[in-house]
Amino acid sequence: MKLASYIHPEFHRKSFGLVDKHGIIDLGRHMGPKHSDLKSVLNAGMLSEINRYSSFPTDYKVDDVTFLPVIDRPNKIICVGMNYLEKRNEFNETINAPTLFIRFADTLTGHDCPLVKPSSTNEFDYEGELAVIIGKPAMNVSKENALSYVAGYSCFMDGSVRDMQYSWFTSGKNWLNTGGFGPWLVTTDEIEDPQQLSIHTYLNGQQVQSDNTANMVRSVPELIAYISAFSPLSPGDVIITGSPGGVGKKRNPPLFMKSGDLIEVEISGIGRLSNPIVQNRNTSAQMNVSPV
Amino acid sequence: MKLASYIHPEFHRKSFGLVDKHGIIDLGRHMGPKHSDLKSVLNAGMLSEINRYSSFPTDYKVDDVTFLPVIDRPNKIICVGMNYLEKRNEFNETINAPTLFIRFADTLTGHDCPLVKPSSTNEFDYEGELAVIIGKPAMNVSKENALSYVAGYSCFMDGSVRDMQYSWFTSGKNWLNTGGFGPWLVTTDEIEDPQQLSIHTYLNGQQVQSDNTANMVRSVPELIAYISAFSPLSPGDVIITGSPGGVGKKRNPPLFMKSGDLIEVEISGIGRLSNPIVQNRNTSAQMNVSPV
Repeated sequence: MKLASYIHPEFHRKSFGLVDKHGIIDLGRHMGPKHSDLKSVLNAGMLSEINRYSSFPTDYKVDDVTFLPVIDRPNKIICVGMNYLEKRNEFNETINAPTLFIRFADTLTGHDCPLVKPSSTNEFDYEGELAVIIGKPAMNVSKENALSYVAGYSCFMDGSVRDMQYSWFTSGKNWLNTGGFGPWLVTTDEIEDPQQLSIHTYLNGQQVQSDNTANMVRSVPELIAYISAFSPLSPGDVIITGSPGGVGKKRNPPLFMKSGDLIEVEISGIGRLSNPIVQNRNTSAQMNVSPV
Repeated sequence: MKLASYIHPEFHRKSFGLVDKHGIIDLGRHMGPKHSDLKSVLNAGMLSEINRYSSFPTDYKVDDVTFLPVIDRPNKIICVGMNYLEKRNEFNETINAPTLFIRFADTLTGHDCPLVKPSSTNEFDYEGELAVIIGKPAMNVSKENALSYVAGYSCFMDGSVRDMQYSWFTSGKNWLNTGGFGPWLVTTDEIEDPQQLSIHTYLNGQQVQSDNTANMVRSVPELIAYISAFSPLSPGDVIITGSPGGVGKKRNPPLFMKSGDLIEVEISGIGRLSNPIVQNRNTSAQMNVSPV
């Protein structure tokens, strides 16, 4: 199943639905007010009950809705850095443990929605990534059982302000609307092995990243086991599993995103996340930092 | 005013109140169900209206309540690393920009409540810090106006798992109940200058950190300006402003916290946050990380 979150085209309220080849079945309407978003359905353990709506007629076309981030307001968004061999080599990374940083929920944006380049940076870089959406409360789970805690997978564009990423990543990764998340969640029954997915990033239609999740340094089960050992995960929490090599910062000459560009992430079995780049209007003069 | 969050001693529900020398005036009861916690009062812009309850009789003694973190579930907890000169020297820090990491809300614990040492570490370190609680929505604010966005100040014990802090801090700073936050919020009218506060940490009554917030590398206004330029702040959000030197990791021999210890942070004009150390019961076998 493909499950998307979006703004309802008629009533302009948030909803979610089942995406098929004909359009979208509006589950927000069919499942009632107690289950009006995807996170609440996951929290109620009702993912498996969605299948019964799959024969319903579609309510509108995919093009009619404004997409929201797959999970609209995740409680925890944990991102993994340096998790592909090529990326580690590009950045001369030597740290052995999984390297993690956190994104706030307000950094997310939906499929086809603008990815916002801060006006204060000339180094707004792309990182195409596989997103893992947690489906059950997970604490101290073993690597062997970890995949049973996953609700599904999606694409992620981890828009990165490189010239603010010099220290511990927080400021470079937490600008508003710099994280594309979509187009939808694909449930685990359709993804046999999350380590056998091709992943490609396209800037204005030109391929800039190309790899396979088989080349992750830490697999999805290892990451869930590692993270859930110190931080309990809840339905709707998201793990962003890191980006392959080929990012703009390490190209010669460097290649960054600018207003008017289109950035896309395609993962086999999931789909293609598209985001136009727009520039924000704030001048952010405060970002000037005096020397210590 | 001193404002504390706690579990109500009779009804065992969450509440908050005004602390004076006689005890606690239960604002959760007086202000009604729409304003049953401190964050909702800050969100409603009603902090200034609390003063009218200050002549009410106290409802119970301070010792009667179980403290919660000052803000029970902050939306954003942004922590500043390496923000005192002595600490920077101890860790040979050369990064110029403010270095930030994030804590999840479930890492917090209240005054007098256990600070939980993970059983998987022998390097559970103390860091006494000044916490700044945001009172108004803050986006792109200037350094000059920044303090007008502050609701108040509190003490923070940033319990740190040093042997998991090797990379970008997230895993070393996000274990459950490792962040002591209390005992209460002291409103800004009682803190004339947040850069003129003495700050001391005591391990089992012995002073282990001693400094003054005048020695912060980035002042509270600078931090608010820097952070709000990329991440909008909301009432109840918390900025943890970094720890002075003297931490256990850099002592010879090192000095870490163990079960049975008592760790305390005292800041002039605010009060003294106390937390007993207990060890958690999970063995966390999953924390073993295979080499890359």
